[in-house]
Amino acid sequence: MKVSIGVSNRHVHLKEEHLKILFGNDFILEKKNDLTQPGQYASTSLVTIKTEKSEIGKVRVLGPVRPYTQVEISKTDSYKLGLNPPVRDSGDLKGSSPITIIGPNGIVELEEGCIIPTRHIHILPSQVSMYDLEDRDTVSVKIDGEKGGIINNVHLKVSDESFFELHIDTDDANAHLTKNGDIGEII
Amino acid sequence: MKVSIGVSNRHVHLKEEHLKILFGNDFILEKKNDLTQPGQYASTSLVTIKTEKSEIGKVRVLGPVRPYTQVEISKTDSYKLGLNPPVRDSGDLKGSSPITIIGPNGIVELEEGCIIPTRHIHILPSQVSMYDLEDRDTVSVKIDGEKGGIINNVHLKVSDESFFELHIDTDDANAHLTKNGDIGEII
Repeated sequence: MKVSIGVSNRHVHLKEEHLKILFGNDFILEKKNDLTQPGQYASTSLVTIKTEKSEIGKVRVLGPVRPYTQVEISKTDSYKLGLNPPVRDSGDLKGSSPITIIGPNGIVELEEGCIIPTRHIHILPSQVSMYDLEDRDTVSVKIDGEKGGIINNVHLKVSDESFFELHIDTDDANAHLTKNGDIGEII
Repeated sequence: MKVSIGVSNRHVHLKEEHLKILFGNDFILEKKNDLTQPGQYASTSLVTIKTEKSEIGKVRVLGPVRPYTQVEISKTDSYKLGLNPPVRDSGDLKGSSPITIIGPNGIVELEEGCIIPTRHIHILPSQVSMYDLEDRDTVSVKIDGEKGGIINNVHLKVSDESFFELHIDTDDANAHLTKNGDIGEII
């Protein structure tokens, strides 16, 4: 089964309370462009993420607001920041790394919230049952090319609102010389 | 067959002529520490690599000098520098990317010489024949872990002077959450 590949650069999801602190009380996220998952979008807003060791600027805020604030980075970013974040699904933030988010209006210091995102595939219930799989099952995906290979521990995220796509971080993409829109094969 | 993993950060090999331009006529590379391959070492010398788009400082020069000058970077580095280097074995530089090297004494502008190194395994003739393989054969290596997988197109580099080790770049290492001294399995 072929699957389109989407590469996620470092980004931030914000809860309403933190959006207000970072950007101001009346601030509303403005859409820059839609993402492939229905309802999700890249906003025009950028923040800086900071640790004691270092910082990374121009990190995009994705919308809409969520019930939790989450910073998603790559292992490469984590070395720069001096962090050792766990590999996690979205929203599973217990014990994840502390990080500070700096916006134009204020600062949010998170005791936890920074993760390396799990490799995952967004998939519809009808698609997942066709293949005798279930939500949160893991699969492997073959990626062709000069630095191709197979990536393991790819989580299935089943939802009625899914656009069928594999999401990997920039480390996975760059290691395999892969870019947005390339095609992988679930095996 | 298990193999120890060595992670290569971006680095530079210099020919004698370029060493003199960058560091001065009487300059001799000083060893900082031995590398795992016999005779190879990290020197105390650092250079900046530069393109029209950007630059990266503190890039280590490896010794001893070679018959060719070669800059090895990752795909992640290549985006920062605005380059699209080919994936190549050492010394195979025809048509590789242009790059400028800046030292304390001078500048070397290479029309070609910047590559992404091929994933490779240093192996002894006795080891390679045991497994019915030959120099420049390619194998795949399994890397375990939370972001584990299998990397393809790993070239065998057979030499009497080998220390048996898999060399991968920082993109491969970070994608797989792998570090120096971890163990892979040739499959």
